[in-house]
Amino acid sequence: MAQITLAELNRMDQRAFVTALGEVFEHAPWVAEQAHAARPFATVAALYQAMTDAVRGSPEDRRLALIKGHPDLAGKAARAGTMTQDSKAEQASAGLDRLSNDEFANFHRLNEAYRAKFGMPFIICVRRHGKDSIMRQFERRLHDDAAVERRTALEEIFRIIALRLDQRIAAADRLKVHGHLSTHVLDTHRGAPASGVALELAEIAASGERRVIARTVTNAGGRTDAPLMSEGPIPIAQYELRFALGDYFARRGVPLTDPPFLDIVPIRFAVAEPEGHYHVPLLATPWSYTTYRGS
Amino acid sequence: MAQITLAELNRMDQRAFVTALGEVFEHAPWVAEQAHAARPFATVAALYQAMTDAVRGSPEDRRLALIKGHPDLAGKAARAGTMTQDSKAEQASAGLDRLSNDEFANFHRLNEAYRAKFGMPFIICVRRHGKDSIMRQFERRLHDDAAVERRTALEEIFRIIALRLDQRIAAADRLKVHGHLSTHVLDTHRGAPASGVALELAEIAASGERRVIARTVTNAGGRTDAPLMSEGPIPIAQYELRFALGDYFARRGVPLTDPPFLDIVPIRFAVAEPEGHYHVPLLATPWSYTTYRGS
Amino acid sequence: MAQITLAELNRMDQRAFVTALGEVFEHAPWVAEQAHAARPFATVAALYQAMTDAVRGSPEDRRLALIKGHPDLAGKAARAGTMTQDSKAEQASAGLDRLSNDEFANFHRLNEAYRAKFGMPFIICVRRHGKDSIMRQFERRLHDDAAVERRTALEEIFRIIALRLDQRIAAADRLKVHGHLSTHVLDTHRGAPASGVALELAEIAASGERRVIARTVTNAGGRTDAPLMSEGPIPIAQYELRFALGDYFARRGVPLTDPPFLDIVPIRFAVAEPEGHYHVPLLATPWSYTTYRGS
Amino acid sequence: MAQITLAELNRMDQRAFVTALGEVFEHAPWVAEQAHAARPFATVAALYQAMTDAVRGSPEDRRLALIKGHPDLAGKAARAGTMTQDSKAEQASAGLDRLSNDEFANFHRLNEAYRAKFGMPFIICVRRHGKDSIMRQFERRLHDDAAVERRTALEEIFRIIALRLDQRIAAADRLKVHGHLSTHVLDTHRGAPASGVALELAEIAASGERRVIARTVTNAGGRTDAPLMSEGPIPIAQYELRFALGDYFARRGVPLTDPPFLDIVPIRFAVAEPEGHYHVPLLATPWSYTTYRGS
Repeated sequence: MAQITLAELNRMDQRAFVTALGEVFEHAPWVAEQAHAARPFATVAALYQAMTDAVRGSPEDRRLALIKGHPDLAGKAARAGTMTQDSKAEQASAGLDRLSNDEFANFHRLNEAYRAKFGMPFIICVRRHGKDSIMRQFERRLHDDAAVERRTALEEIFRIIALRLDQRIAAADRLKVHGHLSTHVLDTHRGAPASGVALELAEIAASGERRVIARTVTNAGGRTDAPLMSEGPIPIAQYELRFALGDYFARRGVPLTDPPFLDIVPIRFAVAEPEGHYHVPLLATPWSYTTYRGS
Repeated sequence: MAQITLAELNRMDQRAFVTALGEVFEHAPWVAEQAHAARPFATVAALYQAMTDAVRGSPEDRRLALIKGHPDLAGKAARAGTMTQDSKAEQASAGLDRLSNDEFANFHRLNEAYRAKFGMPFIICVRRHGKDSIMRQFERRLHDDAAVERRTALEEIFRIIALRLDQRIAAADRLKVHGHLSTHVLDTHRGAPASGVALELAEIAASGERRVIARTVTNAGGRTDAPLMSEGPIPIAQYELRFALGDYFARRGVPLTDPPFLDIVPIRFAVAEPEGHYHVPLLATPWSYTTYRGS
Repeated sequence: MAQITLAELNRMDQRAFVTALGEVFEHAPWVAEQAHAARPFATVAALYQAMTDAVRGSPEDRRLALIKGHPDLAGKAARAGTMTQDSKAEQASAGLDRLSNDEFANFHRLNEAYRAKFGMPFIICVRRHGKDSIMRQFERRLHDDAAVERRTALEEIFRIIALRLDQRIAAADRLKVHGHLSTHVLDTHRGAPASGVALELAEIAASGERRVIARTVTNAGGRTDAPLMSEGPIPIAQYELRFALGDYFARRGVPLTDPPFLDIVPIRFAVAEPEGHYHVPLLATPWSYTTYRGS
Repeated sequence: MAQITLAELNRMDQRAFVTALGEVFEHAPWVAEQAHAARPFATVAALYQAMTDAVRGSPEDRRLALIKGHPDLAGKAARAGTMTQDSKAEQASAGLDRLSNDEFANFHRLNEAYRAKFGMPFIICVRRHGKDSIMRQFERRLHDDAAVERRTALEEIFRIIALRLDQRIAAADRLKVHGHLSTHVLDTHRGAPASGVALELAEIAASGERRVIARTVTNAGGRTDAPLMSEGPIPIAQYELRFALGDYFARRGVPLTDPPFLDIVPIRFAVAEPEGHYHVPLLATPWSYTTYRGS
């Protein structure tokens, strides 16, 4: 989707403004209508504030209607094709568009139970979660009481729209919706960065399924040219980094056993704060390694 | 199989001796016949020496016949049921009794090629190798010349009989056929051994297949009550230790994120010396860990 | 001092028994007299129990007299030569026999203040403390109330006599008065124990003064042939281990810079539990190292 | 000394140019005279090249005269006050202006021996060395032959003038005369940077003498606000970083023993490449730490 600048938005009349931003809140153009009055916005953070203030200041039934306007997760709307483009892309990001029949049945059961208890759809900012984490949240939140769930649903909607605004609008500032995941390989056998180490990042589901996210090679500084993840939130999930350490030391001519004691080094870790900074370095010799949450 | 003591062997006449040990050398009772003359044996090492000396001192055609008396690896003898009990158990230890059709075809192809080139079966002490390692050895040794391969075949036969003698005979000494694999978990968050950490040891095939070898829990000293492997050689293969670190720290009440940064910690390493001492400790906090080949 | 066996003690009449053990309690032979009745002792622990029970069961004025029979720390008794042999040796162990004038003055001041407040000498089991720790204890305990200090004084006396009994009596059991300090050097550059590493253990005073306790070299297993400390308590103090790592790697022919990045590696740590088990290993390459409280 | 810009130098006539740069080469204004012809200089590197080319292209007796124009290290010129300002400051940087009588005598002896053998003063770029390293170089180079020493003397002169040009001239580029020394403290007990850790950097002489270079405290990122050393070369020497780890963990309320197992953590390392990048991090819990040459 082409981005629009904050300056352009600030110059728009209400109709153009609503056309540009109306779908940011799922089927609720009135939020954009009200926020229009607060122009001009010095920052995208100010625009975000105006839109969420419009929701917070609206009557309860309107807020509830806003919540109810959201589609079920992995639900009929998904299959019927009546979701907004944003919702489709978001649900795809967590793999909700390619569920097994069992998983689909499970989501269906949870959706029914949630609607039966709360009379509204289950809303979660799916870009912040892997599939396992969505399931866990779903099962946990079924035990909340109705008032808590309404608050939670709004908070999740605000997270969703922060991400949508961030993608849609070019501005000098950025909303705090981005996480950061990076690595660094130090060769402590020779006291220097390890360059040329092939590595792979995968998301690991509880089922054991591995979804490869990135494959790359360390540069002269032992780092990757770009962060492993840095655009948008890092979904709450288990990850595994795999480093081709054996090949690296073999190429450097270091004496190794056959097979080498360490070959592919896997490091499993979980991300719990999608907007957090995760640095997961590897300090290694052919016989030892250390990893830690760095900074 | 019930063990026999060295004292008993020393008291036997030749016929009983050959009955007791004849099958140690596959279909070659003459080795036991000759060794009988060297009684009494002060140690099982002396008996092993006498038997291998008998082979080394025999004419070349007899040595070759000894080699040729061995069955193909995962070959027709295996399927036809004409192998000795020892051979069957040994081939099973490396999983050669449960090959996929592709693997069986591959072994068949290698056996044919090896026989065509050298006029004898491929002999390897399978208890010292995982399936991947046997394949690698097979493909490598196909490139040797005939003299080298005859020497190698005899060396492998000597390794096989060392293991057979070790299993069959109870004596004060033991042949150097045993490896050792152990672990130790240190909780560097509180400066003490980590007790109650569930862990699993598996052999990992190149195909990705995991064969679980041991499941246990660390004791008060952060060690396992028994070594992870210590009886017989440790097959040359890739292994993975998995430590349930997240559960351990959760049980101790240490504040963790949800999900915890570290939960299941996998450590992959390979064994290259089946009779070696491998100690693979884990020094861990909820946010970092170190592993190394220890002693 | 020659040791006496528990069996010999058990055979003694009261007079011989008191002669043998009378001085264990400073100037209080009545404790040994009473304990004599509880013979025979199955263990030295039972003898210790009988002697401390005799004290606990005695009238308060007698216990107070026992406390008052002890000499001042580094005090006039020390200079006048009227202390028991045990007291002399104990005070020497913490360096109280070679104080600077300032330190002597400081002890004198503390002794006066303590006597003025509590009407008894300050008693501490000096073998469990370095000089700095004695000073800290002295200043802390000056703030206690009288009842607490009497209890503390008795506990310290019991620790003193446990050590004296342990030294004087040969028995099958030993009292729990012994700490343990050991090290282990792993060469993670080549994945093996580091043998031949020269190392030094010193006690470090707050003044910066270093008192070398042990100099040794690691053996083939990367350990020292004997523990660094294991007979008696390890005084509460700061210690420094220094490892000649640069020399070790140079001797092994590992390429190093000139001067080597790591040469003498110092590790400072404190002992807080004199009867504890302290294992302080070093995992090292020419460019990195790790240390931790091990087990 | 006020800096001059490269642009200003480029505009100068020969006389002004020589006045500005004449003393860069000790008592040899002809170097600046010749380099003047190569104006304008696009970079300070080009100016450096022009000046060193002038020396390389000059007749041997002139080069020798240049060498002989340098003062003895810590010699009579130093005491007589006839050195250039630059030489004085340089010799002071390595502590050569505050030698003990023994050290002075030792330098005197070496100077005499060197002059006797080579007929010229010993020249070394002192800013690149601690006092111990200068001594070692002196003793080593006494064994060189004359041709090698003349080449070495010129190389050292070129290093000296690179440093002088770097200090005197403001330009867009900088000569590669700067090293970098930094640290970083990670608290692996809670998986975050350790902020507020007091630390000290000292140079350690072979005599045991400590010269404190920097005292600072880690910031929110676990780093120091400025590199520990970054302006000019880092003298070849032994250094010690001391981290007040015990205080840090006590302030964070982590349960510790009394005294804490780790309190002041010393890390000793040497710099061998004065223009190198040295990063010496500390990963620590109250019970363990890891350090390494990082990047």
